Amino acid sequence: MTHWIRFLHERDERFGVLEGENIELFQGDMFEDPRSTGHTVGLEEVSLLPPTRPTKMVGLWNNFHAAAAKNGWAVPEEPLYFIKPPSCFLASGGTIRRPPSYAGRVVYEGELGIVIGRTCTSVSEEQADEYIFGYTCINDVTALQLISQDPAFPQWTRAKSFDTFGPFGPVATTGLDPSGLTVKTLLNGRERQNYPVSDMIFPPAALVSRISRDMSLCPGDVIACGTSLGVLPMKPGSTVEVVIEGIGTLKNTLE
Amino acid sequence: MTHWIRFLHERDERFGVLEGENIELFQGDMFEDPRSTGHTVGLEEVSLLPPTRPTKMVGLWNNFHAAAAKNGWAVPEEPLYFIKPPSCFLASGGTIRRPPSYAGRVVYEGELGIVIGRTCTSVSEEQADEYIFGYTCINDVTALQLISQDPAFPQWTRAKSFDTFGPFGPVATTGLDPSGLTVKTLLNGRERQNYPVSDMIFPPAALVSRISRDMSLCPGDVIACGTSLGVLPMKPGSTVEVVIEGIGTLKNTLE
Repeated sequence: MTHWIRFLHERDERFGVLEGENIELFQGDMFEDPRSTGHTVGLEEVSLLPPTRPTKMVGLWNNFHAAAAKNGWAVPEEPLYFIKPPSCFLASGGTIRRPPSYAGRVVYEGELGIVIGRTCTSVSEEQADEYIFGYTCINDVTALQLISQDPAFPQWTRAKSFDTFGPFGPVATTGLDPSGLTVKTLLNGRERQNYPVSDMIFPPAALVSRISRDMSLCPGDVIACGTSLGVLPMKPGSTVEVVIEGIGTLKNTLE
Repeated sequence: MTHWIRFLHERDERFGVLEGENIELFQGDMFEDPRSTGHTVGLEEVSLLPPTRPTKMVGLWNNFHAAAAKNGWAVPEEPLYFIKPPSCFLASGGTIRRPPSYAGRVVYEGELGIVIGRTCTSVSEEQADEYIFGYTCINDVTALQLISQDPAFPQWTRAKSFDTFGPFGPVATTGLDPSGLTVKTLLNGRERQNYPVSDMIFPPAALVSRISRDMSLCPGDVIACGTSLGVLPMKPGSTVEVVIEGIGTLKNTLE
């Protein structure tokens, strides 16, 4: 497994490989030809950025059997999703801020993220793995009460797209088989989500294949695989950690 | 008025100012410090690109009084919108293609587009004009039957985001007051939409202000202001022209 990380170091945007508390600096393109510079910096010397620069994050709704069963949702025939734009992305350690336009509840949703490594259009499930670079942790922050605020138009996109509502990271891990993973979410240190990736209705290869039949996925794009049981509101000062073994901990605090 | 245009010329991505059938080539950043090179190429020598490279297109639903009245929609209290990702954008002259994942009706929606010129977050209506670079024509192509296909989750984003479903252009026009403009849409040469921009529920300055309170808008980002009456399905081979005086004609054909 390799843990790719992106960050600011001495005001320059850089990327590299995280090993323990050190980062081996790379140059070139993270997806095409990353080359080690032979130099290393300490993790404490840098300011983290999200591990990739997605052109979009595709976010799944209703993609876990346990959540569907508990909420009485039918198992969908195809992936149901929204899009989070680049303006909402946030690194691990960053502060989630409530927008001036919304005063209601804000919830966390701990999720596995698929990181795309090569442009793909209409790929099969069998081919999908070739286009997956790796995996990351996501907190799909949601302005819950906004979704149904207008009776005629569910505001999924807006509720998910406020600035800082798209934390992901801290790294993108390659060489990781996600099928046996567990997603855990801690609210103020207390475990509130703990669910297996294997409970997904559409697992990663199916998601990449099906979404790529709708729209091209580009290097660095991320698919947020949806969440399961245990979603709760955050309060001012709440800290949320999304923990996936092999990836790490995505930690953010609500202002 | 200045007509900014972006294109491929001898395989290089360039931008410039369109005057009649000629393009004055510029260098630098279109929004920050465009500098004329003193060179000119003919419009027939280039391959058009969309006039900007948006990180997102924000698309409005139900933003015209006439359409709201005819469809029995309540006038919304705030802008209702979805997002179209970069993977769907298409230049004037490009071919709209049906995705393999959808066999239903595909409709055109002729719209005015606002092009953002400076990053803006939480700007007032009075300030909004300073952040608007100019205006463009948009065809907000929509897979109409997909929106309500799943009873539990309206698929606005997906229905609007297929590759090639985001044509805009041919230019971004600066120095244009949009308030007196008319949006016309021709289907196979026959006028099917003809509505005044002044009928908007949230006019451009209000849209920029309110959306910027939700999410930062970046240089090149586009807001599709919504459509009014006269939306119709396209058939294979249908040509759609969105015509706005002072901007030009966005012309695309469905495969």
